Amino acid sequence: MTRLTLALDAMGGDFGPCVTVPAAMQALASALHLHLLLVGDPDKIMPLLAKADSAALARLQIIPAESVIASDAKPSWAIRHSRGSSMRVALELVKEGRAAACVSAGNTGALMGLSKLLLKPLEGIERPALMTVLPHQMQGKTVVLDLGANVESDSAMLVQFAIMGAVVAEELLAIAQPRVALLNIGQEENKGIASIREAADILRESDDINYIGYLEGNDLLTGKTDVLVCDGFVGNITLKTMEGVVRMFLSLLKSQGEGKKRVWWLSLLGHFLKKRLARRFGHLNPDQYNGACLLGLRGTVIKSHGAANQSAFAAAIEQAEQAVRRQVPERIAARLQAVLPKSD
Amino acid sequence: MTRLTLALDAMGGDFGPCVTVPAAMQALASALHLHLLLVGDPDKIMPLLAKADSAALARLQIIPAESVIASDAKPSWAIRHSRGSSMRVALELVKEGRAAACVSAGNTGALMGLSKLLLKPLEGIERPALMTVLPHQMQGKTVVLDLGANVESDSAMLVQFAIMGAVVAEELLAIAQPRVALLNIGQEENKGIASIREAADILRESDDINYIGYLEGNDLLTGKTDVLVCDGFVGNITLKTMEGVVRMFLSLLKSQGEGKKRVWWLSLLGHFLKKRLARRFGHLNPDQYNGACLLGLRGTVIKSHGAANQSAFAAAIEQAEQAVRRQVPERIAARLQAVLPKSD
Repeated sequence: MTRLTLALDAMGGDFGPCVTVPAAMQALASALHLHLLLVGDPDKIMPLLAKADSAALARLQIIPAESVIASDAKPSWAIRHSRGSSMRVALELVKEGRAAACVSAGNTGALMGLSKLLLKPLEGIERPALMTVLPHQMQGKTVVLDLGANVESDSAMLVQFAIMGAVVAEELLAIAQPRVALLNIGQEENKGIASIREAADILRESDDINYIGYLEGNDLLTGKTDVLVCDGFVGNITLKTMEGVVRMFLSLLKSQGEGKKRVWWLSLLGHFLKKRLARRFGHLNPDQYNGACLLGLRGTVIKSHGAANQSAFAAAIEQAEQAVRRQVPERIAARLQAVLPKSD
Repeated sequence: MTRLTLALDAMGGDFGPCVTVPAAMQALASALHLHLLLVGDPDKIMPLLAKADSAALARLQIIPAESVIASDAKPSWAIRHSRGSSMRVALELVKEGRAAACVSAGNTGALMGLSKLLLKPLEGIERPALMTVLPHQMQGKTVVLDLGANVESDSAMLVQFAIMGAVVAEELLAIAQPRVALLNIGQEENKGIASIREAADILRESDDINYIGYLEGNDLLTGKTDVLVCDGFVGNITLKTMEGVVRMFLSLLKSQGEGKKRVWWLSLLGHFLKKRLARRFGHLNPDQYNGACLLGLRGTVIKSHGAANQSAFAAAIEQAEQAVRRQVPERIAARLQAVLPKSD
């Protein structure tokens, strides 16, 4: 595999370098062709590298940045004051071609706005969308978007999300003619809000999209579709609801039987069965698929959960790598050229 | 306890009388003061009562209805053509005072529209809301609304939902000064859509509501609030997402280890631990809390899941009983009188 360089916003997220630096080392250890540019405050990053493996360190470079965009800053304000911030410098490295992609756990609105400003949307895309790939119970995967890049979306945007989602399903998941559904509150055509019904009308007529209709929230993990499209407000709440329930189940499974005195052989067997359960449900653990891809840009940007831990942030780095290797932006651009009406 | 009569739309839902009739018998067997009016086609209901206990049968009466509103009918059309339908007749029984409440698993939009038409909203309520009480991981319960009675809601409606939810938390769950939160995509004040931010501004200023701010989807079951308010579109998708994930987990737990040959003592122990797990997670099973209450009417209407099975529909009947006994509509009316601005 050829050398690949990614830029990390080392300061973003709830824990900053405490999580991003160890995650970077983990990613470097598992991918030998990978080079990382850690953007942030050297005084905070350096101490965390004290015990790092020197071979991995050779593939890491610190790029100084003076400031950090706060997670709770208003995006418009943050963007106006972003010069010199770790997020902006990381995106500039992508713009200049020094990095192939950027990964940040920072302020979503600011990342979205700055990405659009610096990397520009693809032709035919009004607004980029946040996309993730969720495991479903039929052992496959579903592409879900938008997860919160846009608070409101009109029908044209939903159709663009559908096209981008279909390309990702084809290219990243190798699904031929991926099924595309819209998330709604019922399966009948008259259900839901106007933007969704209008998007359904357009998708139904499209020869390029294998549109299968509406799906409801309870079908998020059932594998009935390969691509699930919704507006960013609903998508964000849906994904977080799902993650909240999964995390609650996993923590209940973990604590199963704890705090009770049992005979040793029963404890041992309980432990054994708990491990089996953890294996069975492990693929649903949100940490395993952390990292939402900002689709529709002339470059690759991955948004990690703000609260990501080390392995979750490492998963986001891996996602960035995958998106670059599979040339997701280029393939979306090519598909848009073929599908969208020409503006001449 | 005093005698209490409820009207059941026996024909509504995906399975009609096959589910509603056995559920009615189950409810009669467990509540001796309960009387039920089964509204629907006697030819379809009677055969299902052939083996019923005669003591329970004495507390059951069939009220004939000529037609059924289809689950996929457009609500406006269904309402115009509702005369003589099981849903409408059941609601008319409440209007006439022959039944204290109505339970239906039929078309949500039609039930909402007909309830509003026949039972009328309380003074100060623009549109009723669907509310349910969810168990959370801190062993308590959370009141969630709107779950889909309204597709879109403005800030005034969200505030009305908040007031109604707070009354339910106080009266049904006996929580003093219940915490009220708005469901949003972030906790910062600038997050989300205009209607939510405006509702937050109003609630923040209110002396009568213990408003605690925004919560995100992952907090649905964490018990951080007693009342969670959202618009019907988001609420419907959120609840169904949660239920879908819970059902998937429960079915995976059930099937855990099946289909594999194991030594008998390991199978036995596996079975034992599975039962423990089922007990631990059982209270989260959506069937246990089926039945959403249509709040804001001058009467009690409970909407059951369309796909409810017998025990789930029986749970909806029990909810109706609870709502009537706790005088939910009367208490909401009284609170609204005290809280809402007078229109003089």
